[in-house]
Amino acid sequence: MTGTATLAEIAREAGVSAPTVSKVLNGRADVAPATRERVEELLRRHGYRRRRATGHAAPLLELVFHELESPWAMEVIRGVENVVREAGLSVVLSESSGRLSPGQSWVDGVVARRPTGVVLVLSGLDRVQREQLTSRDIPFVVVDPAGDPGQEVPAVGATNWNGGLAATRHLLELGHRRIAVIAGPARMMCSRARVDGYRAALETAGVPFDPALVRDGDFHHEAGYRAGLELLRGPDRPTAVFTGNDLQALGLYQAARELGLRIPDDLSVVGFDDLPLARWVGPPLTTVRQPLTEMAEVATRMVLDLARGTRPSTLRVELATTLVERSSTAAPPVGR
Amino acid sequence: MTGTATLAEIAREAGVSAPTVSKVLNGRADVAPATRERVEELLRRHGYRRRRATGHAAPLLELVFHELESPWAMEVIRGVENVVREAGLSVVLSESSGRLSPGQSWVDGVVARRPTGVVLVLSGLDRVQREQLTSRDIPFVVVDPAGDPGQEVPAVGATNWNGGLAATRHLLELGHRRIAVIAGPARMMCSRARVDGYRAALETAGVPFDPALVRDGDFHHEAGYRAGLELLRGPDRPTAVFTGNDLQALGLYQAARELGLRIPDDLSVVGFDDLPLARWVGPPLTTVRQPLTEMAEVATRMVLDLARGTRPSTLRVELATTLVERSSTAAPPVGR
Repeated sequence: MTGTATLAEIAREAGVSAPTVSKVLNGRADVAPATRERVEELLRRHGYRRRRATGHAAPLLELVFHELESPWAMEVIRGVENVVREAGLSVVLSESSGRLSPGQSWVDGVVARRPTGVVLVLSGLDRVQREQLTSRDIPFVVVDPAGDPGQEVPAVGATNWNGGLAATRHLLELGHRRIAVIAGPARMMCSRARVDGYRAALETAGVPFDPALVRDGDFHHEAGYRAGLELLRGPDRPTAVFTGNDLQALGLYQAARELGLRIPDDLSVVGFDDLPLARWVGPPLTTVRQPLTEMAEVATRMVLDLARGTRPSTLRVELATTLVERSSTAAPPVGR
Repeated sequence: MTGTATLAEIAREAGVSAPTVSKVLNGRADVAPATRERVEELLRRHGYRRRRATGHAAPLLELVFHELESPWAMEVIRGVENVVREAGLSVVLSESSGRLSPGQSWVDGVVARRPTGVVLVLSGLDRVQREQLTSRDIPFVVVDPAGDPGQEVPAVGATNWNGGLAATRHLLELGHRRIAVIAGPARMMCSRARVDGYRAALETAGVPFDPALVRDGDFHHEAGYRAGLELLRGPDRPTAVFTGNDLQALGLYQAARELGLRIPDDLSVVGFDDLPLARWVGPPLTTVRQPLTEMAEVATRMVLDLARGTRPSTLRVELATTLVERSSTAAPPVGR
């Protein structure tokens, strides 16, 4: 045990028995919520941290998704499976139902299961939840942070800003000047970074940034379709669109089809992610590859290292994105 | 305990101590393989079955995939999550690495974790594995059986034969006579059933079955592409193809694009599954909807019922498939 107080001292200060403190530590359900809160607060305040005996952790790795809807969740699951299989662990999969932070019942479940570690995908933990895991010595790593997880939180991401820059530079080099962007949710830092990269590419090329060419989306197909209809029906429509992710690119494909615009002859499209389906659609999609499987592998290795007591040399890793040119981009139509 | 022998009797017969039999029952790793095998064999022979105390099982549901590659795995995961979330359980996810049956180490892990139940997707268990779970009173249900899981194994599938019939009848009604099919792996019964439905539709319509129009695939994009090139390059090419699943339809789309054939003007295509991407491709794919999420929900509820000691009224459920008409099918070109 580390920290400034023993379990007995915490029990005394909380006015409960030592077994009750044990129950809270072990995530048992038979503790009154008010008691649990008081004990957790004292554990936090005293920086209580249980040193785990070797082999104490269960051979489980917890994997938590913000939402399981997106096809790219599968890429992440594969990366995690690749690493845990070698390590002889099993994966416990949860979904935080679209909330960016999993609920308290999830944390209680994790504490009770005593996993070797936790990988969170686009899901942040609040300060209290982080401290609950830390006090049990359960390491965690965040993949592709949606918000700003705090300097002390280990995280693996991709170079989103560079990806937005590369996508837009590719369109500029083809001769496009009216280039629109469909953003993801504003609360996700990865989306903001992509749009900022887009803007930086325009500005360094001397092309004025036009707010009318920026549309909000949510990374789903439908949002790409709606934003696409708005952009393409306008009087001075763009000749190219960077769609923020691949699903929104498919929505834009549909909008273009309905309006009788050909890709890439009338409209160039660049996505982001490089999901398997980017190769399969017609025309095959030019996109920015985000190495989701590798990101998940790195995050999982990092968590296993932390569980063995090895501190990583850096708490923040960003893997490189790369532009993959396929058939959805070309020079703009003559005269535009 | 039920069965004909007590734990002590099994220990005596195996020539080991009772704690050793306990270790085998609990999936502990510290038992010599030969000993484990001898004890398992005796447990089997005596029909040993541990009656679980209430609340004895861990609040975990094991979900095992044949492979996690396919985008439809996500549909199944969502169905399982929908049900377990309500029930307050967590999902342990495994992959049998493309083998139709998970390995022994997986079974040992399951026995050690004592989950509430097991859902297997396209993964069969051999007799020994089934008996290992049964002797621990761990119920299991198979989703979409790949092989023939045996009459006594609870399973949830879809009406694959009816789906193949409906897909082919739709093409016949549009006026097609040269209709090809791209099959899935021959070892998967769901694939055989779809092809048999195709054949039944042809024969009941008086259209002779032509083996040259049947191609082997493996349910992946690449197989659809290769089979598509073969079929479409031939001298008397088909005017329509039932592709066995949606991913093979996308492969066929690519082959048609490369050969300059328009869908549906020159070639009609019907898929199977109705993955989200079927709506997103151009043209949107006419396909047979297999209710994967609902199948997973039914299988999960069945496992939870079994865990509570409720026998389902039937061990075999097939949910209905339905034809979803979109834009990839039309009458055959004039003169063909």
